[in-house]
Amino acid sequence: MKKGALVILSGFSGVGKGTVAKRLVEKYGYSLSVSATTRKPREGEVDGRDYFFKSEEDFRNLIDYNGFIEYARYVENFYGTPRKFVEEELDAGHNVILEIEVQGAFAIREQYEDALLVFITAPSAQEIKNRLIGRGTESEEVINKRLSRAVEESEDMCQYDYIIVNDDLEVCVDQVHAVVTAQACERRHNMELVKETMEGLKTL
Amino acid sequence: MKKGALVILSGFSGVGKGTVAKRLVEKYGYSLSVSATTRKPREGEVDGRDYFFKSEEDFRNLIDYNGFIEYARYVENFYGTPRKFVEEELDAGHNVILEIEVQGAFAIREQYEDALLVFITAPSAQEIKNRLIGRGTESEEVINKRLSRAVEESEDMCQYDYIIVNDDLEVCVDQVHAVVTAQACERRHNMELVKETMEGLKTL
Repeated sequence: MKKGALVILSGFSGVGKGTVAKRLVEKYGYSLSVSATTRKPREGEVDGRDYFFKSEEDFRNLIDYNGFIEYARYVENFYGTPRKFVEEELDAGHNVILEIEVQGAFAIREQYEDALLVFITAPSAQEIKNRLIGRGTESEEVINKRLSRAVEESEDMCQYDYIIVNDDLEVCVDQVHAVVTAQACERRHNMELVKETMEGLKTL
Repeated sequence: MKKGALVILSGFSGVGKGTVAKRLVEKYGYSLSVSATTRKPREGEVDGRDYFFKSEEDFRNLIDYNGFIEYARYVENFYGTPRKFVEEELDAGHNVILEIEVQGAFAIREQYEDALLVFITAPSAQEIKNRLIGRGTESEEVINKRLSRAVEESEDMCQYDYIIVNDDLEVCVDQVHAVVTAQACERRHNMELVKETMEGLKTL
């Protein structure tokens, strides 16, 4: 059985990565990888849906048991991608989507050479700024912080395999899925069929 | 303006390449490249639709004027892919599809590094044989000739970028289109957007 594809989504804050991931689950049956974290749940967050909420002790234990395909500490808290879910889903032939920061994406690429690193962006820099502002009623300070974060993220953009603009959500989702479909058609993923065909034709 | 993609379809005889190309034109608006040839039209063939029918003198003239992106002689006749149509369509941002033999495909790849070489096959060697036989009421000799040709073609299969099975026509057509869509999303085809975004974010 063919393994599933591992799709890593990164991109600017406010650009709609979460919505893209959700649509890939709904529209194309992707399996969504849920991160584990030691931070406390915010209002409305559900354990197992938004995050797996863990104590720091449990989280450190999982690190020791190679339980994460990548993890990182931001400020006070740990965040990690549970290995078991990702590997079981891939082995079952399901496409797995995960939304992750740049550093995590690169760490995963080192372990999964077939991982597809997709950077989601907006049609223009102005539009990225509009979306950062448009989110709510944030102070200028918060907006400036987000903007300088975006400048940093833009520098990693050109290390991604694919750059996809989220202007029309359905177009964007279909493009991500096209990348996965195309990968499955690559010669190196079809060498068994090639061999069977070559040998089969000779012996018929 | 973004250039269109150049898609080269090759594959076993009887595997439905022509139908796949036709559906790409109908469903996704691809431009179909029509070959020129010096052979005489068969019954029902229309000049400009099936082939551009040329005299040998005209054909040789076009060769001298670099009028073909590839050409070859089979038995008594010349076959070639007119350059003008392909380049104008690509420049206009249209995806161009062309159905061609293995040698022509490789000749084109040398000139167009972004050409997508797609090999269309059937789900199994037995199925390829069934389709070769299934075409009509050919003699055993003709079938054996076709079969040994298929053995040769299968050896070139593993030099194609993509291997796509034509089992369900619509699935096959959508997979070819996914390959084109994915290519347009590749980082190297989006460096202008990346640069604009990086610079735009810094100067906002």
